[in-house]
Amino acid sequence: MRTSIATVSLSGTLTEKLTAASRAGFDGVEIFENDLLASPLAPEEVRARCADLGLSVDLYQPMRDIEAVPAGEFARNLRRAEHKFEVMRRLGADTVLVCSSVSPHAVDDDALAAEQLHALAERAQDFGVRVAYEALAWGRHVNTYDHAWSIVRAADHPALGTCLDSFHILARGCGPEGIEDIPGEKIFFLQLADAPLMAMDVLQWSRHYRCFPGQGGLDVAGLLGHVVRAGYRGPLSLEVFNDVFRQAEAGPTAVDAQRSLRVLQEAAGLAEPPAPVVPTGVAFAELVAPDAQPVSALLRALGFTRTARHRSKPVDLWQQGEARVLLNTGPAVRRWGRPPRPSGSGGGTALAAIGLESPDPAGAARRAESLLAPVLPRRRAPEDAPLDAVAAPDGTELFFCATDRDGLPSWTRDFEAVPRHAERAGTDGVPDAGVAESGVDADAGAVRRIDHLALTQPWHQFDEASLFHRSVLGLRAQESVDVADPYGLWRSRAVTNADGGVRIALSVGPAPGDDGARVQHIALATDDVVAAARRFRAAGGRLLPVPGNYYDDLAARYAFAPGELETYRELGVLYDRDEGGAFRHCYTETVGRLFFELVQRDAGYRGYGAQNAPVRLAAQHAQRYGG
Amino acid sequence: MRTSIATVSLSGTLTEKLTAASRAGFDGVEIFENDLLASPLAPEEVRARCADLGLSVDLYQPMRDIEAVPAGEFARNLRRAEHKFEVMRRLGADTVLVCSSVSPHAVDDDALAAEQLHALAERAQDFGVRVAYEALAWGRHVNTYDHAWSIVRAADHPALGTCLDSFHILARGCGPEGIEDIPGEKIFFLQLADAPLMAMDVLQWSRHYRCFPGQGGLDVAGLLGHVVRAGYRGPLSLEVFNDVFRQAEAGPTAVDAQRSLRVLQEAAGLAEPPAPVVPTGVAFAELVAPDAQPVSALLRALGFTRTARHRSKPVDLWQQGEARVLLNTGPAVRRWGRPPRPSGSGGGTALAAIGLESPDPAGAARRAESLLAPVLPRRRAPEDAPLDAVAAPDGTELFFCATDRDGLPSWTRDFEAVPRHAERAGTDGVPDAGVAESGVDADAGAVRRIDHLALTQPWHQFDEASLFHRSVLGLRAQESVDVADPYGLWRSRAVTNADGGVRIALSVGPAPGDDGARVQHIALATDDVVAAARRFRAAGGRLLPVPGNYYDDLAARYAFAPGELETYRELGVLYDRDEGGAFRHCYTETVGRLFFELVQRDAGYRGYGAQNAPVRLAAQHAQRYGG
Repeated sequence: MRTSIATVSLSGTLTEKLTAASRAGFDGVEIFENDLLASPLAPEEVRARCADLGLSVDLYQPMRDIEAVPAGEFARNLRRAEHKFEVMRRLGADTVLVCSSVSPHAVDDDALAAEQLHALAERAQDFGVRVAYEALAWGRHVNTYDHAWSIVRAADHPALGTCLDSFHILARGCGPEGIEDIPGEKIFFLQLADAPLMAMDVLQWSRHYRCFPGQGGLDVAGLLGHVVRAGYRGPLSLEVFNDVFRQAEAGPTAVDAQRSLRVLQEAAGLAEPPAPVVPTGVAFAELVAPDAQPVSALLRALGFTRTARHRSKPVDLWQQGEARVLLNTGPAVRRWGRPPRPSGSGGGTALAAIGLESPDPAGAARRAESLLAPVLPRRRAPEDAPLDAVAAPDGTELFFCATDRDGLPSWTRDFEAVPRHAERAGTDGVPDAGVAESGVDADAGAVRRIDHLALTQPWHQFDEASLFHRSVLGLRAQESVDVADPYGLWRSRAVTNADGGVRIALSVGPAPGDDGARVQHIALATDDVVAAARRFRAAGGRLLPVPGNYYDDLAARYAFAPGELETYRELGVLYDRDEGGAFRHCYTETVGRLFFELVQRDAGYRGYGAQNAPVRLAAQHAQRYGG
Repeated sequence: MRTSIATVSLSGTLTEKLTAASRAGFDGVEIFENDLLASPLAPEEVRARCADLGLSVDLYQPMRDIEAVPAGEFARNLRRAEHKFEVMRRLGADTVLVCSSVSPHAVDDDALAAEQLHALAERAQDFGVRVAYEALAWGRHVNTYDHAWSIVRAADHPALGTCLDSFHILARGCGPEGIEDIPGEKIFFLQLADAPLMAMDVLQWSRHYRCFPGQGGLDVAGLLGHVVRAGYRGPLSLEVFNDVFRQAEAGPTAVDAQRSLRVLQEAAGLAEPPAPVVPTGVAFAELVAPDAQPVSALLRALGFTRTARHRSKPVDLWQQGEARVLLNTGPAVRRWGRPPRPSGSGGGTALAAIGLESPDPAGAARRAESLLAPVLPRRRAPEDAPLDAVAAPDGTELFFCATDRDGLPSWTRDFEAVPRHAERAGTDGVPDAGVAESGVDADAGAVRRIDHLALTQPWHQFDEASLFHRSVLGLRAQESVDVADPYGLWRSRAVTNADGGVRIALSVGPAPGDDGARVQHIALATDDVVAAARRFRAAGGRLLPVPGNYYDDLAARYAFAPGELETYRELGVLYDRDEGGAFRHCYTETVGRLFFELVQRDAGYRGYGAQNAPVRLAAQHAQRYGG
């Protein structure tokens, strides 16, 4: 179906909004009146600009407080409407949105409303304009779609139909089944918005918290099914009032919006993009580090070994169990988005890319491309194995990998094994502090795999990031949680595949200003975090110190085996528990924007230790700035 | 009464919170458990720190989900409580907050709740601890203060009392009169918080939107009266969960908090600080301008004349009618707070100070000082007339003035009249383009006075700014309005005196990042804005261009006299109307952080043209960056 977006959903000047909508692949726009009023472009110029951009002007909105008023006021309203119809003529817009009145002067008289809407439509027809009457959820007398439709039906004018808005219908909890009783040709327009489920005043909810379909908790796809079955064939148009989107760059928001409509059409059975190919595991995490020394030392202390080196580029493969880390010391390799500014010691060390083990890398890329993920070049260098990759909203590159699988190119072929005798000398010239020499049992506490990746998202793109990971990668989102750090609340939401082989924790800081120093971490799974922590310390690693008060509280909350709590206290191991089991974890110091976590996860435990995050955040803050 | 604050109300580490609370004059603190857990200080060290800072530890909180549970669970809860009593002993805290249970395991059995609370109190007594039981507004079975009290009464233990929380009581709309039925000595603690009136889920409301008393819409003073009449003599303690305060600097927030308690005690008749002395007008606005040329040219084009010069400093007095502008070209004069960074052309031109005409300058200063406004030195230089002044939360200096009034020192005595023949040559060396020469009637469109001052506030201190202007200056707050600019929503709230002689519009941008370039403007009142605009243009001034679409909309909305709208369109005059009359206004270009507005206000019009602000903001943006 055709897609459209209301200009109020995007930030910037009208010109910027139109450009962003066009680039994201929208077919049309709703022109929001305030955007026109504030624009230096005359309506004819807006019309020409839209034509140049391949956009139709699908709706002009809104007209308010028109109907069911005393005759004198209605005469003034008609006069006002004529002015607007003239603007629409100049604009090339043929449908106007009329919202049900919220005026204290409106009377509860459907017959009068119908009569006046009939008169309005009659006048509109002279200008070649159709009137789409919509029930606002907070309309004074008319606030349900079936009520609005009954007035439209009574008015009985060919230039009068109804406009349906998913938010207004679903926010009130109205059953949308009755939509199918409306003749499709009388549904003049369909506006779509989702919203997180919040118990709050519906007007405030609508004006500040709407989001794109799939980002909230309303069943927009179900509603769309009813509308299509009613016979509606007009555009699917997004109308989203959102305080964050108003501030965000229009370009990414428009792409996010278009993606949401593609996923929505898929969910409603109206489109069949390539099916999602859910990743089964993490093939690798790729770090960039202008200065390899600090992070190499950290990897070595964590028990990683440098096993291979890229044939042509300064990229080392560090491995332990199934955990693979690529360390790229070349010049800036990021090919998408702006890298956040480096912070702290360790220079620009950051997580730049994630290799996702995929059952069908090409299929995963087709899915991603169909949902507007920026596709990266398949080869980094002529001799490299082709590798499908896209960029996530935060700029992280996602590679779809088939690691050492028959018949598929493997990224590992670009690497040459480092001979055993050379293994100990890293790119940084510092010899490995081999684990065997340290006197600790080589297997106890070994890292098995990457448990999860934790990525701080750009503040304005948290909703986008969540929808991206769910729709493009086919991951499931877990509950969103709030976490306090000393200077504000973080929000965190994890996305995972079914068996937990891929877990990505997305989080966002308290305010947009912190975007520059977005911290990331890699959590490494071990069967024995105490042994892992001891190994790490024996190898010279330093764990994040945890305040003693935290352990006094643990003692109050849980019963531990003799000595267990003392061990945690000694090492800085944190503890959490849910219905499914326990979670024990500790943290390394931060290098650049990156740190590591060692985690021991009982099979049934679903979380990420969010309970402990405030303590971790405060401890990291104390480490940086003093307690 | 003694004042206290919960550490969760302030940002930072526990150390930072305690320091801020002490500096702001609090007598004690509630230690929020998470702040202790995340602190590297042992409880004994926290106790010592508090003692050094002159703070008592008035409450430790919270214990949750204790009561009305099966015996096995209660045994575990008692064990947990003992650990906490031990921590409290180390901390020197003698009262613990127990919140009514939200656990799904809690049963609806008041007798069981009372029995278990009795047992808890018995154990607490052994540690010298008192238990204060509080009804959470969302408690599972106990969610009203009278219910909590009835259980406390039934439990009948000397170490068990109740804790009252203004938010939990008022948010549910419970009548607080019944508080007087509780014996004062059984009210172990009183927590105070206000909140803006919002129809939303009470848990979310409580966790994110609480504010200090006087900043929201709850009758906290009324509640306090009941509590005091019941005989409560404990501390007044603030417990505020607020997403913005969590991010703000702890120092100013603590001062804001302490100020709110002083105003609250005054409102409840418990304290008598010096009475507010409401300013009657604006004596002057003082601009700082490292480069005087651009702003001098603007003042001259607006019809101002340089009439006097400071005896010893590079400060000129520009005057027109009752509007007086001081132009200070000396080195940085700000003596309070950090000046925002300069932006755009015109260098650091900014509004640095406001002279408020005061019936009793010394009394106004005493009021301000009693409410913790930072008092500035009374003399700027040895030869200056003494002038009482304080700093507003945004750093603007407020001078309490008696301009040329008998028996009081006047700031004007520091200035020497500029002889008529010298008048035309400003400090910048550019001769005045005198109005008389321009061929325009000298009186029509003349500026009469300053209509209002519009000050963008630091993002984190909007609530503080509003309370400051109301309580310190005795101004009244008008409704808060949302205004859209191309990149987000602004909030704006004006404070005025009764006759509109002083009007200050406080606003705040969409996100904290924009703090650096906080724009200000001075609105100048004229009886004829069209003549004023023409005068200004004839004198070489440039008005902000307003899009034609805006006037098409005006034509649709209002009926104008023939030619009227065309004149507005030609000049860029904006128009608004409310029940009381019309408002016509136009804007100059921006110099540094400052621009001027010319306004013609019908006597009955109460607003500031907020309806037109989106158009103005977009036009200003277009002027800076292109449309």
